[in-house]
Amino acid sequence: MRGNSDVSTRIESDLLGEVRLPVECLYGVHTARAVDNFDVSGVRLHDFPEFIVALGMVKKAALAANIELGLIRSDIGAAIDQACDTLISGETLKPHFPVDMMQGGAGTSTNMNVNEVVANLALLAADRRPGDYAAIHPNDHVNLSQSTNDVYPTAIRLTVARGVETLMTSMRELAAAFRRKGNEFIDVIKVGRTQLQDAVPMYLGQEFDAFAETIEEDVLQLQSAVRLMAEVNLGGTAIGTGVNAPKAFSTIACGYLSEISGVAVRPACNLVEATSDTGDFVTVSGTLKRIAVKLSKICNDLRLLSSGPRAGFGEIRLPAVQAGSSIMPGKVNPVMPEMMNQVGFQVIGNDLTVTLAASAGQLQLNAMEPVIVLNILQSMRLLANGMDTLRTRCIDGIEADVERCKSLYDGSLTLAAALNPIVGYNRAAEMAKLALREGIGLRQAVEAECALTPVQIDSIFAPVLARDE
Amino acid sequence: MRGNSDVSTRIESDLLGEVRLPVECLYGVHTARAVDNFDVSGVRLHDFPEFIVALGMVKKAALAANIELGLIRSDIGAAIDQACDTLISGETLKPHFPVDMMQGGAGTSTNMNVNEVVANLALLAADRRPGDYAAIHPNDHVNLSQSTNDVYPTAIRLTVARGVETLMTSMRELAAAFRRKGNEFIDVIKVGRTQLQDAVPMYLGQEFDAFAETIEEDVLQLQSAVRLMAEVNLGGTAIGTGVNAPKAFSTIACGYLSEISGVAVRPACNLVEATSDTGDFVTVSGTLKRIAVKLSKICNDLRLLSSGPRAGFGEIRLPAVQAGSSIMPGKVNPVMPEMMNQVGFQVIGNDLTVTLAASAGQLQLNAMEPVIVLNILQSMRLLANGMDTLRTRCIDGIEADVERCKSLYDGSLTLAAALNPIVGYNRAAEMAKLALREGIGLRQAVEAECALTPVQIDSIFAPVLARDE
Amino acid sequence: MRGNSDVSTRIESDLLGEVRLPVECLYGVHTARAVDNFDVSGVRLHDFPEFIVALGMVKKAALAANIELGLIRSDIGAAIDQACDTLISGETLKPHFPVDMMQGGAGTSTNMNVNEVVANLALLAADRRPGDYAAIHPNDHVNLSQSTNDVYPTAIRLTVARGVETLMTSMRELAAAFRRKGNEFIDVIKVGRTQLQDAVPMYLGQEFDAFAETIEEDVLQLQSAVRLMAEVNLGGTAIGTGVNAPKAFSTIACGYLSEISGVAVRPACNLVEATSDTGDFVTVSGTLKRIAVKLSKICNDLRLLSSGPRAGFGEIRLPAVQAGSSIMPGKVNPVMPEMMNQVGFQVIGNDLTVTLAASAGQLQLNAMEPVIVLNILQSMRLLANGMDTLRTRCIDGIEADVERCKSLYDGSLTLAAALNPIVGYNRAAEMAKLALREGIGLRQAVEAECALTPVQIDSIFAPVLARDE
Amino acid sequence: MRGNSDVSTRIESDLLGEVRLPVECLYGVHTARAVDNFDVSGVRLHDFPEFIVALGMVKKAALAANIELGLIRSDIGAAIDQACDTLISGETLKPHFPVDMMQGGAGTSTNMNVNEVVANLALLAADRRPGDYAAIHPNDHVNLSQSTNDVYPTAIRLTVARGVETLMTSMRELAAAFRRKGNEFIDVIKVGRTQLQDAVPMYLGQEFDAFAETIEEDVLQLQSAVRLMAEVNLGGTAIGTGVNAPKAFSTIACGYLSEISGVAVRPACNLVEATSDTGDFVTVSGTLKRIAVKLSKICNDLRLLSSGPRAGFGEIRLPAVQAGSSIMPGKVNPVMPEMMNQVGFQVIGNDLTVTLAASAGQLQLNAMEPVIVLNILQSMRLLANGMDTLRTRCIDGIEADVERCKSLYDGSLTLAAALNPIVGYNRAAEMAKLALREGIGLRQAVEAECALTPVQIDSIFAPVLARDE
Repeated sequence: MRGNSDVSTRIESDLLGEVRLPVECLYGVHTARAVDNFDVSGVRLHDFPEFIVALGMVKKAALAANIELGLIRSDIGAAIDQACDTLISGETLKPHFPVDMMQGGAGTSTNMNVNEVVANLALLAADRRPGDYAAIHPNDHVNLSQSTNDVYPTAIRLTVARGVETLMTSMRELAAAFRRKGNEFIDVIKVGRTQLQDAVPMYLGQEFDAFAETIEEDVLQLQSAVRLMAEVNLGGTAIGTGVNAPKAFSTIACGYLSEISGVAVRPACNLVEATSDTGDFVTVSGTLKRIAVKLSKICNDLRLLSSGPRAGFGEIRLPAVQAGSSIMPGKVNPVMPEMMNQVGFQVIGNDLTVTLAASAGQLQLNAMEPVIVLNILQSMRLLANGMDTLRTRCIDGIEADVERCKSLYDGSLTLAAALNPIVGYNRAAEMAKLALREGIGLRQAVEAECALTPVQIDSIFAPVLARDE
Repeated sequence: MRGNSDVSTRIESDLLGEVRLPVECLYGVHTARAVDNFDVSGVRLHDFPEFIVALGMVKKAALAANIELGLIRSDIGAAIDQACDTLISGETLKPHFPVDMMQGGAGTSTNMNVNEVVANLALLAADRRPGDYAAIHPNDHVNLSQSTNDVYPTAIRLTVARGVETLMTSMRELAAAFRRKGNEFIDVIKVGRTQLQDAVPMYLGQEFDAFAETIEEDVLQLQSAVRLMAEVNLGGTAIGTGVNAPKAFSTIACGYLSEISGVAVRPACNLVEATSDTGDFVTVSGTLKRIAVKLSKICNDLRLLSSGPRAGFGEIRLPAVQAGSSIMPGKVNPVMPEMMNQVGFQVIGNDLTVTLAASAGQLQLNAMEPVIVLNILQSMRLLANGMDTLRTRCIDGIEADVERCKSLYDGSLTLAAALNPIVGYNRAAEMAKLALREGIGLRQAVEAECALTPVQIDSIFAPVLARDE
Repeated sequence: MRGNSDVSTRIESDLLGEVRLPVECLYGVHTARAVDNFDVSGVRLHDFPEFIVALGMVKKAALAANIELGLIRSDIGAAIDQACDTLISGETLKPHFPVDMMQGGAGTSTNMNVNEVVANLALLAADRRPGDYAAIHPNDHVNLSQSTNDVYPTAIRLTVARGVETLMTSMRELAAAFRRKGNEFIDVIKVGRTQLQDAVPMYLGQEFDAFAETIEEDVLQLQSAVRLMAEVNLGGTAIGTGVNAPKAFSTIACGYLSEISGVAVRPACNLVEATSDTGDFVTVSGTLKRIAVKLSKICNDLRLLSSGPRAGFGEIRLPAVQAGSSIMPGKVNPVMPEMMNQVGFQVIGNDLTVTLAASAGQLQLNAMEPVIVLNILQSMRLLANGMDTLRTRCIDGIEADVERCKSLYDGSLTLAAALNPIVGYNRAAEMAKLALREGIGLRQAVEAECALTPVQIDSIFAPVLARDE
Repeated sequence: MRGNSDVSTRIESDLLGEVRLPVECLYGVHTARAVDNFDVSGVRLHDFPEFIVALGMVKKAALAANIELGLIRSDIGAAIDQACDTLISGETLKPHFPVDMMQGGAGTSTNMNVNEVVANLALLAADRRPGDYAAIHPNDHVNLSQSTNDVYPTAIRLTVARGVETLMTSMRELAAAFRRKGNEFIDVIKVGRTQLQDAVPMYLGQEFDAFAETIEEDVLQLQSAVRLMAEVNLGGTAIGTGVNAPKAFSTIACGYLSEISGVAVRPACNLVEATSDTGDFVTVSGTLKRIAVKLSKICNDLRLLSSGPRAGFGEIRLPAVQAGSSIMPGKVNPVMPEMMNQVGFQVIGNDLTVTLAASAGQLQLNAMEPVIVLNILQSMRLLANGMDTLRTRCIDGIEADVERCKSLYDGSLTLAAALNPIVGYNRAAEMAKLALREGIGLRQAVEAECALTPVQIDSIFAPVLARDE
């Protein structure tokens, strides 16, 4: 560091030259370069505090391994450890993590941003000035035995694994809300529809139960997908060969990381493969896509079932949460399902972005990981926010229009299938066709045309729904 | 060619060795290698006869240019010309074009298949045996002044340009069918819906007119996209630098090609760029996707409007074209729109495949063109077949349920917006809310609550639809 | 059936009227309608014989359950059983399964095609004429206790579960081929690259081992995904409420189906949900996409590593399988990886189609299942064919250019990372920069600039690669 | 408004009840509801100031039409006009536009946010208090003759049309930068490559010229796509039937809007179609995707050409903008192309989101427009930022390694194609194969094996590149 007459700034340098930073700035020259280089998306590292926490955990675990392996002086270690704890605590250091999430360099800028902030926090903890890297160095100490190529994907995996918990809570709560409605509507008989055509009878409760069921299934899928996140490449350093890290580092660091994070991580069995491979992100993102597909279907159904109020299906009423129109007075729209549908479209689009980025790995690395993590974290957040909002502002307040359900059911020909065992498919079809043509009920058609006894007819048109009792 | 005691076969060879072919086989060693190498998709060159025709046209045009430039002996030229005409005539040579459409090698196998068939047809025309390449050679004569890298994309462009005509006919006919229904239903008043909620009144004819309009718009988009197909890289040979082709070749060959094909092609201004660039295919495929999106929306609407027959919207009836169910007698399903929806999904998926392939160009070529042409031609065919089927088996037979439309309209609150100018948005919203809560009509609510004169009330509830007259 | 003077044909009828069929035709009126209605994709049911086998198994299992439940006469049962066995045997009945795979109607046409062929085969087995449905009826007997809505998705799941075995074999064999090359190249030292820049040393064997590893991981993913296929909705009939099927039918039929197929299927716990849900197909297709992503990355690497022969990386040589160019003599192209890349693009596009179709489920059914099964089966076939071809015609014949690998390694600066522990990151960076600027080796730079002892320097530049021993 | 003892707040109400707002708050109850309802994406209306400007322009144009049609009192008009000008001026009103861009309700919340802010600004201009809607009302005055359903898409179209100018500037400047490099490298002879294999000679300048050309082509495509934005549905109000707007309103308002915005907008010929149709957004987004595809290809090439520095192609050097690695000292990575690649992936993913949303239109509206505008505006911004950054920090500083280009060229066999006209394709292939096998040059192989005169040989190996002069 050269002479610097300005006391409010300090100077740092790299191979490209010097940069001047505010004296109290916790990041250093590499972060400053990155901020200059990437001002593209407007979405910054500090917009994902959960990612900073995970990076702090990885640094802390790596440090612990370095200490155990005798690679670092204990006073330096103590200072760095304290700095990592600051990151892990979630204490807001917002302005100090300014790098754009959409960055070239395979995450190097993010890793260096963390290395520099940790180094400077450690220097402060050691009563030194930020930038005094001769004492504690971002690369030689904070990044010791590590490379962006193992730290960055390990932190992504940790962030996703931890974040999935939040998402699963949102899913479970949404499923529970549907389950409650399923119980509430257990006796509401209605027309079941296939291909939007009146089909056979069912209960409204079965419809909502199915929504609950389908989301619960996806919780299982998500658990299965996220289990893949536990296999990390920490210790592989640059390309998985572990250059600059002791052979034992990987296992030791993963042990500490499990302890610190509460996520049981373990080293991948083939670190070279694990360093370039992003297949597990494809699976996680694909599972988010599956959830989006399910939610899209559910929300489409909710919008159909609540269509009207008078010229639609009108079987259920969604709670009004805002005026529906700037021109049509009194109109109330299904804004919550519409919001969720759009979230679904975004998540499906994001999954394509993840797929493209994952396909673009080359040789010993996938340099496109930044856009992968950005899209997965955004999708997880959108889904969790979306589902929470949908549940509290829509599902919980849904009411059945029992009379409407009943009257549509009574007017329908949905019992035609029940005729099959008695009169055969062809004859039953003729009855249904007759009723439709004449605008009469199916029972009337049967009475008019079939040589059935009244007892037979009654048995057909008695309640036909088997229910799990 | 070595000694070959078996009179029913001939032997051809390349740098990899010899292959034995049936003596009358019109393709040669390169095609045989390709058939061995690529047995992947089951979709073969002969499944796209329109592509073979276009390839024949390119070969004929290149030959004409070679003749004009004095590069080929006139008797050889005449024989090759006759062979090209056979391809162009569409005469079925099915077993002779067996290469898999999904091939590595950037189309070389397809080009060589054509070169070999043309050479052997020319040899037959010249009273020689197939395989006598010393006389007429697939590369040295048929492919003279050409490379796969210019022949193949040029032929794709020609195929697409010509095929779009068929597609546009299907589109125009479908639009006309909708237009006819628009006229037929011009007086059918009904509820217009936004967000699946009853909104304001409209005529059913307007709905079908809009379908016609939206498809007509896409004819224009397609015309505009396909205009890009006219710029070809013929004459650029290997990488656009025109190696092995005289400088004048490109312009002369394009002139002939325009004449032969009826499509006014011209050389791209930058042949190097044109050789590796597949952007125009992205645009064409994107336009097919746009059409798919439109058709999806229309078919979703048709299925909604025909939902029922009793517990749905029921405003229109689609013609029954088959029994709808193996278990529900008398059920008639909207199978034609469902088919078209699925075609739409396929076309959108194919567009992604095209996008991925187009992104994968490297340096002086895009080796992924085979999957591009396969997907574009399939999408065009699916759309044309789908629309023709939809039109003749569904749209033409649609009937309005005029009474249902009227009764839903009468029961609705869709005239609330008409109250705005007289009582203001807030008060109008109260009227609508009241009517909904009490299960009464909007007019009743207004009469009960607003200090309006009967004349004012009448004017509000008079027919409100402006129509183009 | 009415009078029919033409002995070579028979007449069948449905609610739409009569159709005339060749007297020996095994399908009936419903199939004939479907063939008329859907001539869209050109891909027919008989193009997927494995699907016909699975449909035959489902019919046989349903029959067995019907017999056990006393719902069908034993002689009719015996005839139908024999007919099902014919389908299961894979005996070619190609012309009798002509329905387009891209069909509206949620698979009804496919189910009816099977019902009719089975009924007519059974009639023949019972020494009756095809079409004599009073004796054995496609709906009332063959489809007894079933609906398209449970038969069709159950058969899809069975087809996929069984087909995955083939795919996994292809994957395992490809992985094994890479593993062999990994062993073969275990000592070939070379430059490891990240972001296409020279990074740190590695062995070529590690690169191929990683290919093997990454595919083996996907076998596990596929196993996990395909496990979902075991949960079927057989017995749910129309919408999952089991109308027209005895309550016990589901469990009994699944038991028989497990026995017949060798796949341990079980009824879904919520049949209503299971009938409309297509989430599991999203997961399976997403897993195929993951495989495609992996293969794309691998093939991109193979093309990079074999780039040249002289002006590229040139570290490996792919076997020549055909002449590479119609104009550039002696050029040999990486046609097999190119083919595989294109297969990957198709599979990713197909996955989008599946996603779109899965999102389009409505209420109690997803009518878009035909396009889902079409795309999943196509993708599975493409991947299996592609991998087999890639393995036998490319991977097995790959050779390392050991000298080229070594000479690139020797000329590189990939040992700079090894300087970190000794001179620190900043100083090491200066050494690398100096070497690059001066065009010298890293060792020379170190000798010139660092105050290191020869012993220290030797230790840095000794072989640095840890290998698992 | 009820009694409100707290002077720092005011109370507004809608049909759902009352909300309390800070007295100086420029938005009202509808915005407050929306903020409560939608806290999903974190991206807010104020994050797209260009969209607020466009909305202000639409409001101003509608007002002018209302004034001309005598529908609004002149003093109210003057106040609203002044308020619109404030929005158009781009003056920062950031906290007053808080609604989430990802909203249900088809844009109603955005429109109402603008209506309320304009009304309150107008009230302030008229020396009244915010919230005094009896004087100036968000719906009855600001939204007069309008509906969200015409205002919102019209404003989107205007925003896109105006924003494309910025994007095209970025594209033109990037193309110009490539063009400059094309000139600079005009004489750098090198190996042209197809399928990553050495093909035929070319100049490095041609490669960069092609980059320029391909981007310039896309400027034309963008111009053509954006022309579609000029057709708006303003005046169609709720569903395109123009309810509550005078028949002349549409034309008059479009006239004013053209004047105010500088974009020549005109009413769509079929307003019903125009209200529900989002096809033009599919086209615009598809064009952004095309640009992304092009940039991906270019950036892939830049990374390939600069691979090394020693074990790669090494034909060009990208400027170093930051240290490349946290562990590999001196490594410099192609971070700018990597950033651009990721932008491309995001844009392609966003295009899928737009496609899905566009497909989800139903009947008279597409309620998914909010996610459409969000994704299009994000993609435009990402592309413009990305290209500007790529140009200034990468392209402008690219250097050719002339010697490396020359030495690779000299060692290659790229002149084999030039042998064709003299010795024929088959013999030329043998020469190339011989050279490769023996590790000698092509000239040596020709000299050794062909009976050519020295003059003939010289003529083949003379410079072979035709250049446009």
